Amino acid sequence: RAGLGEYAFPVLIVNGMQPGPRLCIIAGVHGDEYEGMEAVRRVLHHTDPATLRGAVVGIPCVNLAAFETATRSSGIDGLNLNRIFPGDATGSLSLRLAATFLRTVIREVDALLDLHTGGGFGEIAPITIVQSGYETLALGLGQAIGHELLWMGGKWGGTARISALEAGKAAVTVEVGGGGGCRDETIAAHVDGVRSAMRYLGMIAGTPTMRQEYRIVSGTFDRATSGGFFLGRARPGGECGAGQTVGVIVDPFGDERQIIDAPHDGLVLWIRRRASIQPGEETVIFGRVERVITS
Amino acid sequence: RAGLGEYAFPVLIVNGMQPGPRLCIIAGVHGDEYEGMEAVRRVLHHTDPATLRGAVVGIPCVNLAAFETATRSSGIDGLNLNRIFPGDATGSLSLRLAATFLRTVIREVDALLDLHTGGGFGEIAPITIVQSGYETLALGLGQAIGHELLWMGGKWGGTARISALEAGKAAVTVEVGGGGGCRDETIAAHVDGVRSAMRYLGMIAGTPTMRQEYRIVSGTFDRATSGGFFLGRARPGGECGAGQTVGVIVDPFGDERQIIDAPHDGLVLWIRRRASIQPGEETVIFGRVERVITS
Repeated sequence: RAGLGEYAFPVLIVNGMQPGPRLCIIAGVHGDEYEGMEAVRRVLHHTDPATLRGAVVGIPCVNLAAFETATRSSGIDGLNLNRIFPGDATGSLSLRLAATFLRTVIREVDALLDLHTGGGFGEIAPITIVQSGYETLALGLGQAIGHELLWMGGKWGGTARISALEAGKAAVTVEVGGGGGCRDETIAAHVDGVRSAMRYLGMIAGTPTMRQEYRIVSGTFDRATSGGFFLGRARPGGECGAGQTVGVIVDPFGDERQIIDAPHDGLVLWIRRRASIQPGEETVIFGRVERVITS
Repeated sequence: RAGLGEYAFPVLIVNGMQPGPRLCIIAGVHGDEYEGMEAVRRVLHHTDPATLRGAVVGIPCVNLAAFETATRSSGIDGLNLNRIFPGDATGSLSLRLAATFLRTVIREVDALLDLHTGGGFGEIAPITIVQSGYETLALGLGQAIGHELLWMGGKWGGTARISALEAGKAAVTVEVGGGGGCRDETIAAHVDGVRSAMRYLGMIAGTPTMRQEYRIVSGTFDRATSGGFFLGRARPGGECGAGQTVGVIVDPFGDERQIIDAPHDGLVLWIRRRASIQPGEETVIFGRVERVITS
């Protein structure tokens, strides 16, 4: 932070001794998703320029204002940085952040990995989001992360991923873990995914963690119709059958206000971990397996 | 909630068919500590009036305003309900809550269990807080919770526990878990502790979980001298030796700003799980074993 009213984002760069692609790895678009931030630092600190092909640009925390308040959205202008790309260089802080990131970083690189977790609100299965319509550009990179689930939907706009894809760069969002805190196993999962992607891009030695099969999923957001106390009865990544109860909302006395049943056979992609819930807030993201593909 | 500008707290009562003590169990003094809230409901819903001696008064969530915003302190007046007892019936919402709780509930009961967790900020070892100076009134009840660690310090004032003790009621605070979400094992630990206390008080059949030995601990709060990203390297309840590194604060680039070493041989009572930290905030609560007692 430069001073009152001025925010910057930290940039770590490892320039390889060999030519190769330029990969950008970011985390902290949401301020309460800690594991990606530490994963970016670990990857950058442990990448040896002597053997690296190309360059790695790591931004451990894009949204320092949201990190400082441990919130998903910015406490300064109330905006969710993951919904406002390409931003606006003359707008409020979050809009300027988005515009600055595109202008100064994305323009200079060939590929983007945007690391997320479920944050304070929920816990998510290991899943890589590949934007529908950009499979040629991003599917291989998404597969190389190594998570079996590929979410092809992602129709919501305003992400760094979409802006990068529109600029012709390979870009995926990687999701894993969450539910509060900064968990070692989630940091490790992100580090493994990034390293595998670097192998896929030929930047470091080794073979990427390509699976024989990937499940392509779409997601449906279930939203609360009642406020109250949410009790989850499923784990992210777990299978669920149509009609299976995966959560319940009770009032302060414990009486049931809403029962959340799976709308179809499939799996739980994300489940709420913050117990307090208001009408309209997300309870569960259900995944439907649309097809299985091979690498 | 009665309406705009009016908050109530939910009260569940099970009146036993047999005479006996009146026990009050509360949770949700802090709005982001979910497991105690569910534990209170479970105990009340599963207590059979036909076999109960005395009465159980359960308040699943004292501070609904803080629960709704999932915050430790109230979003309405910014006060931490655990620091302002006995409150003020003519003050702001949190002060009125405290005063109302003492006047309408504590005056009518014989004993109080105040269930807490580490909440969103940190994770705590299973520990029962028995106020120094009130051992005659509360030590047996505290031992009956079943946690091996008894924290006798608790010099900070303004808790419901202190107000209840000053009114001549047996009262302890029970801490376990935290770190985000609503975890089944933490709910179960609170339910087990409450049931054991009810056995100790002769309210339900069975023998309380008395241990042969308890460790009496005092606690020291370590506070950050630098802001940044806190990485914990210890688990609550774990032993630590003098000089052992239990956490580190790094800047956004990953450079070390502060290393937190154990000040003495002892154990980690609480460790921060929220990674973002500002100078002056708590990193770790270290426990020193003052003595071992038998039940």
